[in-house]
Amino acid sequence: MKPIKVGLLGIGTVGSGTFNVLKRNQEEITRRAGRGIEITMVADLNVDRARELTNGECEVVNDANLVVNNPEIDIVIELIGGYGIAKDLVMKAIANGKHVVTANKALLATHGNEIFKAAQDKGVMVAFEAAVAGGIPIIKALREGLTANRIQWIAGIINGTTNFILSEMRDKGLDFDVVLKEAQRLGYAEADPTFDIEGVDAAHKATIMSAIAFGIPVQFDKAHVEGITKLQATDIRYAEQLGYRIKLLGIARRTPNGIELRVHPTLIPAKRLIANVEGAMNAVLVQGDAVGATLYYGKGAGSEPTASAVIADLVDITRLATADPEHRVPHLAFQPDAMVDTPILPMSEITTSYYLRMRVSDQPGVLADVTRILADSSISIDAMLQKEPDEGETRTDIIMLTHQTQEKNIVSAIAKIEALPTVVGEVTKIRLEQLS
Amino acid sequence: MKPIKVGLLGIGTVGSGTFNVLKRNQEEITRRAGRGIEITMVADLNVDRARELTNGECEVVNDANLVVNNPEIDIVIELIGGYGIAKDLVMKAIANGKHVVTANKALLATHGNEIFKAAQDKGVMVAFEAAVAGGIPIIKALREGLTANRIQWIAGIINGTTNFILSEMRDKGLDFDVVLKEAQRLGYAEADPTFDIEGVDAAHKATIMSAIAFGIPVQFDKAHVEGITKLQATDIRYAEQLGYRIKLLGIARRTPNGIELRVHPTLIPAKRLIANVEGAMNAVLVQGDAVGATLYYGKGAGSEPTASAVIADLVDITRLATADPEHRVPHLAFQPDAMVDTPILPMSEITTSYYLRMRVSDQPGVLADVTRILADSSISIDAMLQKEPDEGETRTDIIMLTHQTQEKNIVSAIAKIEALPTVVGEVTKIRLEQLS
Repeated sequence: MKPIKVGLLGIGTVGSGTFNVLKRNQEEITRRAGRGIEITMVADLNVDRARELTNGECEVVNDANLVVNNPEIDIVIELIGGYGIAKDLVMKAIANGKHVVTANKALLATHGNEIFKAAQDKGVMVAFEAAVAGGIPIIKALREGLTANRIQWIAGIINGTTNFILSEMRDKGLDFDVVLKEAQRLGYAEADPTFDIEGVDAAHKATIMSAIAFGIPVQFDKAHVEGITKLQATDIRYAEQLGYRIKLLGIARRTPNGIELRVHPTLIPAKRLIANVEGAMNAVLVQGDAVGATLYYGKGAGSEPTASAVIADLVDITRLATADPEHRVPHLAFQPDAMVDTPILPMSEITTSYYLRMRVSDQPGVLADVTRILADSSISIDAMLQKEPDEGETRTDIIMLTHQTQEKNIVSAIAKIEALPTVVGEVTKIRLEQLS
Repeated sequence: MKPIKVGLLGIGTVGSGTFNVLKRNQEEITRRAGRGIEITMVADLNVDRARELTNGECEVVNDANLVVNNPEIDIVIELIGGYGIAKDLVMKAIANGKHVVTANKALLATHGNEIFKAAQDKGVMVAFEAAVAGGIPIIKALREGLTANRIQWIAGIINGTTNFILSEMRDKGLDFDVVLKEAQRLGYAEADPTFDIEGVDAAHKATIMSAIAFGIPVQFDKAHVEGITKLQATDIRYAEQLGYRIKLLGIARRTPNGIELRVHPTLIPAKRLIANVEGAMNAVLVQGDAVGATLYYGKGAGSEPTASAVIADLVDITRLATADPEHRVPHLAFQPDAMVDTPILPMSEITTSYYLRMRVSDQPGVLADVTRILADSSISIDAMLQKEPDEGETRTDIIMLTHQTQEKNIVSAIAKIEALPTVVGEVTKIRLEQLS
């Protein structure tokens, strides 16, 4: 059988990894796919560099439209990124009857519903394993491996940059700003790290996973997005003393009232396997009603790890290209006519536990006032840590871990605590998940 | 579209889990599969119990042949186990043009080549996610998720009984026999635990994974099978002091000379994520050339976790049932005409590191003699531990960790060490893997 022909849009880090791995493992990949897979055309604005990277082994153009409009091309790989040109090209490729492979989480989290609808109507596949957790086959696990389950929740370390920063902060007791600079120097953080450190990238990925897990449309605009820029080394240290680690988690949870979809720093018990995922590694923990907890771990970014996911999608499409569109795996795990629109809950309605740190005057009655406020809001305290004031200090830190409560409860209790004359400044609040 | 009809052979622990989960999550599973999946017929020798478990919701027979010969049945689930009747029924089901789902690792590890060949010829699927690591979708990850990679090695904790026993031995400092009894009492070990504790079950699973990872036929008879029955609490303790844990690993590794396929107790660095997989949990670590290391963790046994894998296979088959057989996922990941017969290496040819423990007389020159023998065999020592003799004792333990060497080298060096007059009794040898 003739090789399937692939056009590549954008040959940067992941694009060149894809080109190289496909070439290096050509023989083995063909033995798996039952058919050769060849990148025959590459579009990149930097034509010279693209020519160099591809050794003159395929046609190089600077206009991506030439790829998506080329009738010879069966599959288009989109590695341009962003919502603008990338969306336009993906929609054109679909309209031209081409299958699409993309690593573009931003695009899918924001325009996925429109893109999948177009693909469905046209009978082509849009595959996106590389969009979440790089080389870890988590989309496949959720969409195919766990189909028996009513998925209850997903919690993932799905941004390597922030996990690297948090690991370094804990290991070395350093502050966020210092570690960020180090991460940039080492190439773990980009020059403009906003999307990573503010939680946007993790929220894109959590949004995509929520759709697949619960059969709901992608709704990035409803996600709670909170990064690690305000996290202090102090809190990482106190958390550790209480037996917890702080990770930036992407969480999607099904509740009787709706779906929780949120990204924020989270205390998790140090003894959980996922708490021990360090450095730039990713891991996703999935709780299903039949299987219980399963965890998927690996590299979430980088040239060849991401290429591994892109190529797995190429093989899937090659294997299924001739299958009746009705009998392929649905894009979002559920059949398009069987999606539901369970609401995403506003943050005030979510339920979780909390770590609270407050600076108080070292005088009688403070603790009684604080605990009274929490009790009046029906918030139970699970653990507490109070230090003696440092030499010459008249103030000290109180740290509390609460039972589960609704976010709006804790917010109103915190407002009351902050109004106490004995409490200095703001109360630090970090969410806590047992993940059990 | 009419529901797909499933016949179930054997309604024990996993069978009843499958029946229950399929019923409980019927609505969600149908939304994923695009078609209802119904168990319409159950065969079990205990007809009364089967009737009770199925609430009269499907036909119950005591002759499994009535299921495999029933023209109404599309898919047969085989949960009988063993090589005898199970094989006969699976072959009949295939001959009758039915797809098969099985959790029977023993059957596939020993007769898989014949079974997959028959299925291929008949154009039906034989799915077996439940045969390895229970609810963890590891077969799918290896076969579909990592297709871009040249897989270098797999190392798995793939037997929950032995991992439970090893965890307890380490936690409580108890000996094997004591913990085994406890495990039997708690239901983690069967009345006849031979297949688990002697490593046979793990070797069945490692054999299946080796075929999928490397594109070779299943060859259980070539696997090295070694259990945990001879493991002493002493060695677990010494390993811990050196920064290692002992796990029963199933290992499949590609080398330039052939494939290593082996199950044995193994020291692994305590800081590796997989070293922290405790109790009856399973985990598989896979090293691919593009993706690097990925790890898959979850429950490896039990009613609903295993049912989760069985049902995932049912959904896969339902989605692909109408696809051209040429374009489904190949049973063993590689196209049947693209398998290779890379030899499985005899144990003497494998390369690994070793933990050695020897009991020696506390007198000058012992260590010089031992290290000379190792040096003469070109075996380097990575770490060493020598204790002062206990009060009133004239003998002591020496523990050594070696660099990588071929098994035949260490075996001949150990024979020479055991011949030394200052060395008492046998040298304990446990293999060690860095997994990096």
